Amino acid sequence: MFFSPIGIAHSSLLTPGAPPFQGVFSQAEGTIEIYPEYREGLESVTGFSHLIILSHFDRADRGALVELPLLDGNSPHGIFATRHYNRPNPIGISYVELISVDQGILSVRGIDLLDNTPVLDIKPYIPAFDSIPGAVPGWVTHQHIERIRETSVHAQQGLHSTPK
Amino acid sequence: MFFSPIGIAHSSLLTPGAPPFQGVFSQAEGTIEIYPEYREGLESVTGFSHLIILSHFDRADRGALVELPLLDGNSPHGIFATRHYNRPNPIGISYVELISVDQGILSVRGIDLLDNTPVLDIKPYIPAFDSIPGAVPGWVTHQHIERIRETSVHAQQGLHSTPK
Repeated sequence: MFFSPIGIAHSSLLTPGAPPFQGVFSQAEGTIEIYPEYREGLESVTGFSHLIILSHFDRADRGALVELPLLDGNSPHGIFATRHYNRPNPIGISYVELISVDQGILSVRGIDLLDNTPVLDIKPYIPAFDSIPGAVPGWVTHQHIERIRETSVHAQQGLHSTPK
Repeated sequence: MFFSPIGIAHSSLLTPGAPPFQGVFSQAEGTIEIYPEYREGLESVTGFSHLIILSHFDRADRGALVELPLLDGNSPHGIFATRHYNRPNPIGISYVELISVDQGILSVRGIDLLDNTPVLDIKPYIPAFDSIPGAVPGWVTHQHIERIRETSVHAQQGLHSTPK
């Protein structure tokens, strides 16, 4: 099946596999540029605080079925049990905080997409549908989450070393 | 960009646009059949209570940029402000509860996918990444959510009218 990008992400993130990992641990700001022919689809989007961005990990290895986690990579896991970008269909899910929309350009916070990542779809985040706080996260321990958080926050302190 | 299905969903849901809407309001059970060449990627998946299924809404209208909600459809919204299946790149996000895995067949609960929907990717649901309970859901009111819930539950009572 064939899909065409509806837009493209612009960010300061240039290195595949480098932190920040996961939008929830990113304070990086960036923009999602929606191409002119799709901008009509943005009507009503401004009321949502968070958006789901489906993107194409265009620098991924599509052949991997087992991967080491990017952090704490001691034991490999099946690709469908990880969030690694190397997957048979390298489609990413990102959650971003919407700051503003102007002329088809979404300004967002908490971006974890590499610069120039093709964007496939945008959906509104609706907690009644999308939030499952009690889900059991398998092999992903609290310690692993904290390592991801700390590494991501530290990376951004490096990027933005001037005090706010 | 080109994607190939990694598997296919089997469910009792046959009618596009009919409830249940959203997996969270569905108690329907079904299976996700992963094709043999991708089954190695399922290693470690059994520890997760919930999975994210990315699917191809293969019966969707890709030309729609504005849609009426399936319920309470009084005013149209931009497609990127709705979860409607008619979208330029008709990729669906479903959350299912994993019951068991056997020979590449995932038995799941809370399926909202039509029978024979192609599956593009499976990711583990990790609350620390995916749950944003405080997100503000724009035009989607509490009343709208309740209508979706009631309609979905009622539809399943019709499907399964024998007492459990």
